[in-house]
Amino acid sequence: MANKKILIVPGDGIGQEVTAVGKKVLDKVAAKFGHEFTYDEALIGHVAIEATGNPLPEESLAKMKASDAVLFGAVGHPKYDNDPSAKVRPEQGLLKMRKELGLYANLRPIKLFDELLAASSIKPEILRGADILFFRELTGDIYFGDKGRKNNGDTAYDVAEYSRFEVERIGRKAFDAARTRRKKLCSVDKANVLETSRLWREEIQKLALEYPDVEVEYQFVDATAMLLIKDPCRFDVVVTANLFGDILTDEASQIAGSMGMLASASIGDGTGVYEPIHGSAHDITGKGVANPLASILSAALLLDISFGMKAESELVIHAVDQVLKAGYRTRDIADATTAPEMILGTDAMGEQVLSHL
Amino acid sequence: MANKKILIVPGDGIGQEVTAVGKKVLDKVAAKFGHEFTYDEALIGHVAIEATGNPLPEESLAKMKASDAVLFGAVGHPKYDNDPSAKVRPEQGLLKMRKELGLYANLRPIKLFDELLAASSIKPEILRGADILFFRELTGDIYFGDKGRKNNGDTAYDVAEYSRFEVERIGRKAFDAARTRRKKLCSVDKANVLETSRLWREEIQKLALEYPDVEVEYQFVDATAMLLIKDPCRFDVVVTANLFGDILTDEASQIAGSMGMLASASIGDGTGVYEPIHGSAHDITGKGVANPLASILSAALLLDISFGMKAESELVIHAVDQVLKAGYRTRDIADATTAPEMILGTDAMGEQVLSHL
Ligand SMILES: CC(C)[C@H](C(=O)O)[C@@H](O)C(=O)O
Ligand SMILES: CC(C)[C@H](C(=O)O)[C@@H](O)C(=O)O
Repeated sequence: MANKKILIVPGDGIGQEVTAVGKKVLDKVAAKFGHEFTYDEALIGHVAIEATGNPLPEESLAKMKASDAVLFGAVGHPKYDNDPSAKVRPEQGLLKMRKELGLYANLRPIKLFDELLAASSIKPEILRGADILFFRELTGDIYFGDKGRKNNGDTAYDVAEYSRFEVERIGRKAFDAARTRRKKLCSVDKANVLETSRLWREEIQKLALEYPDVEVEYQFVDATAMLLIKDPCRFDVVVTANLFGDILTDEASQIAGSMGMLASASIGDGTGVYEPIHGSAHDITGKGVANPLASILSAALLLDISFGMKAESELVIHAVDQVLKAGYRTRDIADATTAPEMILGTDAMGEQVLSHL
Repeated sequence: MANKKILIVPGDGIGQEVTAVGKKVLDKVAAKFGHEFTYDEALIGHVAIEATGNPLPEESLAKMKASDAVLFGAVGHPKYDNDPSAKVRPEQGLLKMRKELGLYANLRPIKLFDELLAASSIKPEILRGADILFFRELTGDIYFGDKGRKNNGDTAYDVAEYSRFEVERIGRKAFDAARTRRKKLCSVDKANVLETSRLWREEIQKLALEYPDVEVEYQFVDATAMLLIKDPCRFDVVVTANLFGDILTDEASQIAGSMGMLASASIGDGTGVYEPIHGSAHDITGKGVANPLASILSAALLLDISFGMKAESELVIHAVDQVLKAGYRTRDIADATTAPEMILGTDAMGEQVLSHL
């Protein structure tokens, strides 16, 4: 039995709806196992800009640093997407949070629940058995380098950067994880073109010497984008840079049937942050149809990784599995054979999971 | 009837085997339509480094500039991939060729031959009707910006850059193409993070005003990587930056059943270059099993785009279609139902196509 402070950071769009369900799940787990979880909330993204003018107010950051873990929603708003010249943007809050909390490792487990085989656009015989753990580097690359305009604003630039230290620390986490799994690591880069990728590959090659029991392969990012769909089962642990990881994990969501199923853990020097990989999804915001399972599975990752509560985490995953086995679906994971009465909204899906805890 | 000078640039790995077949197809077309095609050859990539120390010898470049079109193979060699610190690399030849010939627009048509529905890892009901034309910018972005090391070699950097002029000229080509098709354009960027993407989006938004008949949508690259698999039929023309185009088109090869089917045209200020999107594939080099259809379809694009020979081009595509309809497959596009005697090697597949011309 433990005392823990959890910060709920819903952010924008469906972030509000899904983290509310994730929180209920954490609450029920605490009650069941006799833990004491206390909660606070903080603003980020568009809602923070609206309230304070700042996409990550100091107060939010302070609360994050003071908490034992953060359950995060999403950030983003179409308003800024359509206005490329906006100076203050919701995503700045997310990126600043990652940098300030030192969240250099983003873990994205991609695993298909058997019941969702039919929901994927990929053939079942290709998918069956797929189980990939992505390590996406999260505080470097072209996301955080210098960027701006020159030549009177007629040229834009973004600088990608990696230091050996940055590659080594994420590489080590990925190798360590591979050891506990099927002992295969695929490092993804574009070393035939990029200098950052060549440094990346040098560092992974060095680390490989320390992990002779892990089988390492190197793939280019373009080939990987193809192989993930053609033969997802060939991958075990995949480690890659920030931008490549952003693209490849969204693509890989199709392996899991839907983006609405995928959770991620961002860890590093301090407080861990747990969030769905789906975004703010303004097209369905407020309609009560968002899939809360990614937030619930993010809560499961939080319990496991930040609190070391393995049994609690497994119970949550098991509950999700039971609900899917019982035939319940949200819209995004329903298929042609799903009966209309089995298609649930956000809260009803949450209730189903709670009833299995 | 026309006189044309075609330069064959096989490059590395299976490039040799497949361009030999592409050339035979061009030859047969010339005979049939009474054209006179004369051929020359030039070195690039690893084979050029071995012969001259230079991945793109001056002589090769001069021959390219002096020819009416180039049929290209592939470049690359595992030797350099495993040695991130190699100073001279095959890919430098390819990139230099693109820059020197001003090949700023890379067209990659993704269309499934109905017969290959079964060869894809994506479900047939998702694929049916997919028909996408990618415009990948090819002479800018992080491929051509400054790159290097600093901090005593402990940090690597790559600079991505785009000027308004560069975005506008590729954007215009994409809008023009959309007009001749289903009048839909999707511009892909990462404008929520990258300054180059924001400039990209600004320029596409400006162009959109000139093309009120074309329906434009803007997507982030991560979402696009997901949507391509989830719902490929929603796309018509897609325009994107060099690096994103590299990744997304390789991924999209799965829509066409195999990378071995996909041709591309690189065009711009001078001689056009036509090449498969597959690489040098050293794992199957010299085995005679490479799929020559991408090179044959590259020859078809060459006839159409560089020579304006529409009928000739269509005949080639039709011949490929007939061969697939007759049930012939190379290994990469065979499926569980393909009888062993219908699985052909590179040359035998080429002969089948020739017999339909
Ligand atoms: C919102 C955006 C800045 C973010 C990213 O690119 O990292 C998102 O796509 C993600 O993957 O968490
Ligand atoms: C070989 C490599 C440099 C090249 C690229 O990245 O452009 C290739 O992947 C391609 O798509 O033509």
